[in-house]
Amino acid sequence: MVPEAERLVAVTRGPLTECVHRGHVAVADANGRLLYYAGDPAHVTFARSSAKPLQALPVLESGAADAFAMTDPELALLCASHNGEETHVQTAQTLLSKMGLSGEHLQCGAHYPFHRQTAQAMRRRGEQPTNLHNNCSGKHSGMLALALMLGADIAGYLAPEHPVQRRMLAAVSEMSGVPESDIAIGVDGCGVPVFGMPLAALAAAYARFGRPDGQPEARRIACERLMRAIVHHPDYLAGDDRYDTQLVRATSGRLIGKMGAEGVFAIAVPERGWGIAVKIEDGAQRALYPAATEALRQLGLLSDTELAALAKFHRPLQHNWQGTEVGAIVPEFQLRPAAG
Amino acid sequence: MVPEAERLVAVTRGPLTECVHRGHVAVADANGRLLYYAGDPAHVTFARSSAKPLQALPVLESGAADAFAMTDPELALLCASHNGEETHVQTAQTLLSKMGLSGEHLQCGAHYPFHRQTAQAMRRRGEQPTNLHNNCSGKHSGMLALALMLGADIAGYLAPEHPVQRRMLAAVSEMSGVPESDIAIGVDGCGVPVFGMPLAALAAAYARFGRPDGQPEARRIACERLMRAIVHHPDYLAGDDRYDTQLVRATSGRLIGKMGAEGVFAIAVPERGWGIAVKIEDGAQRALYPAATEALRQLGLLSDTELAALAKFHRPLQHNWQGTEVGAIVPEFQLRPAAG
Repeated sequence: MVPEAERLVAVTRGPLTECVHRGHVAVADANGRLLYYAGDPAHVTFARSSAKPLQALPVLESGAADAFAMTDPELALLCASHNGEETHVQTAQTLLSKMGLSGEHLQCGAHYPFHRQTAQAMRRRGEQPTNLHNNCSGKHSGMLALALMLGADIAGYLAPEHPVQRRMLAAVSEMSGVPESDIAIGVDGCGVPVFGMPLAALAAAYARFGRPDGQPEARRIACERLMRAIVHHPDYLAGDDRYDTQLVRATSGRLIGKMGAEGVFAIAVPERGWGIAVKIEDGAQRALYPAATEALRQLGLLSDTELAALAKFHRPLQHNWQGTEVGAIVPEFQLRPAAG
Repeated sequence: MVPEAERLVAVTRGPLTECVHRGHVAVADANGRLLYYAGDPAHVTFARSSAKPLQALPVLESGAADAFAMTDPELALLCASHNGEETHVQTAQTLLSKMGLSGEHLQCGAHYPFHRQTAQAMRRRGEQPTNLHNNCSGKHSGMLALALMLGADIAGYLAPEHPVQRRMLAAVSEMSGVPESDIAIGVDGCGVPVFGMPLAALAAAYARFGRPDGQPEARRIACERLMRAIVHHPDYLAGDDRYDTQLVRATSGRLIGKMGAEGVFAIAVPERGWGIAVKIEDGAQRALYPAATEALRQLGLLSDTELAALAKFHRPLQHNWQGTEVGAIVPEFQLRPAAG
């Protein structure tokens, strides 16, 4: 019998649990050993944007970071699903200009910024979003940088067979320990390949990212440089009021986590050499941060102060249009140690 | 063992099922007999806005519809979670003015219209939403009408112990067959009580609404008058591009369905004297209309032409920012006949 998704988070309203979000959690070390889990840690799903830090590795390994004098905010933006705040858009633009390119070379497509106030202000001004506002514009800028370093075509970089995407698949395979041929490939919201793998393999990839001692020299240096950039500039990983940014801030960079669309979150725990991956089965973001924070709490990875700083992500209260509290989003699972 | 929520809808991306939405379906007749189900038909959840047509019954039974010369669009709006389109706002305003009241007497709170284009246009004009734009402004107008007819205080109508809410609870109890004391009470997004009951009881309430022969005279007349209003003016039940409106239109009024927040949908099938209720466990709206349409298909309640007209709600395709098709939302359950 295939293990089922487990109840991870309840949404209460008055006397009832009105909704339930099920899912899977896997905690692994850099050897790929499963340590703790909930639901089915072997559940195969797309890493979506939680693969971005792994996809940034071949960009750095190509020498692009030095060739284009990438700053730490720019490096953090390579790994980001950013808010499209002015500073994010400006940073992507500057990075592209150092490469002799512009937002028009990005093929991520345009969407209004995730950041509500920024999007509303643009709408009030009658302003259309550009590729630079796309939350993936940093990742796509990195893909163009890698294409330039490889002397590859910069027009066709979305295709799975393009040298840029081949390198990124290789890096994801090496970090996760899943053979390339076993990684399921889909198409992301921004047009590039996404990588499907068991949740425990994504956790292992993050364990290795956060504790890259065992990696080849160039890979180790790339992991450390990206982590340093994110730790010093968490605003560029996501932005105002976002969990990814707040998690780094609240823990003073002890923990680095990255969300992915459809309910994915992956966390590197360098101090223990662990990685954690969460998948909400139904893709709901409202359940993702409560589940991720609860996993961290159960693993003893958050001090009381840190947990308090993340309280509104851990157990968000639900309010109605009048501002009255009507319910809460409450984690309700228990991680189990893996056998053996 | 408590029956579990069942997989109702899959969200695919390329080669993988990326997300799953579980839930419950109940099909019952006007005698309260369970006919078909998926998941747990006894699952208790809040009816949310799918209770609105039931809540409108005591408004009509009080004589308010005649006293305030309510038109059919106004009657349909009493039952609506409307889009906040100009015509909805105008209709609520007119109804209130016939009662000598205005939008300021509504206590539903303000939110930007559900209708994206209307909301965006308001933001461009720097316009704030009012109580009239709230999707529940029709229901709240009906509550004020009932308060006036009862000679009750019109300021305190949100409270569960207010005569208006007592009448509505009684109507929901009578229609669903659930004793008042067994109905769980929570607070809705718009501040009024919401009613928690087994899904099969909600289905039975809709069966009775659609086939009210067995009801007391005043109730039967109220059901028939509301149905007629909705059938002739489905635009006022929801609005542009909304499933509730399209279901009535596609079936030329043979089926009347009403959504509720957090993944609830209830349908009256007058021709068979059946009611259908669907709950998506995680509350996702994207799974609700595929599940509801699939239930109707399996029950033989949609012709090929009607199913084709609802195709984009039945199996919506998923596109990325470039407009490329990346996956689909696909129902995957099978209704079972109830034992006995």
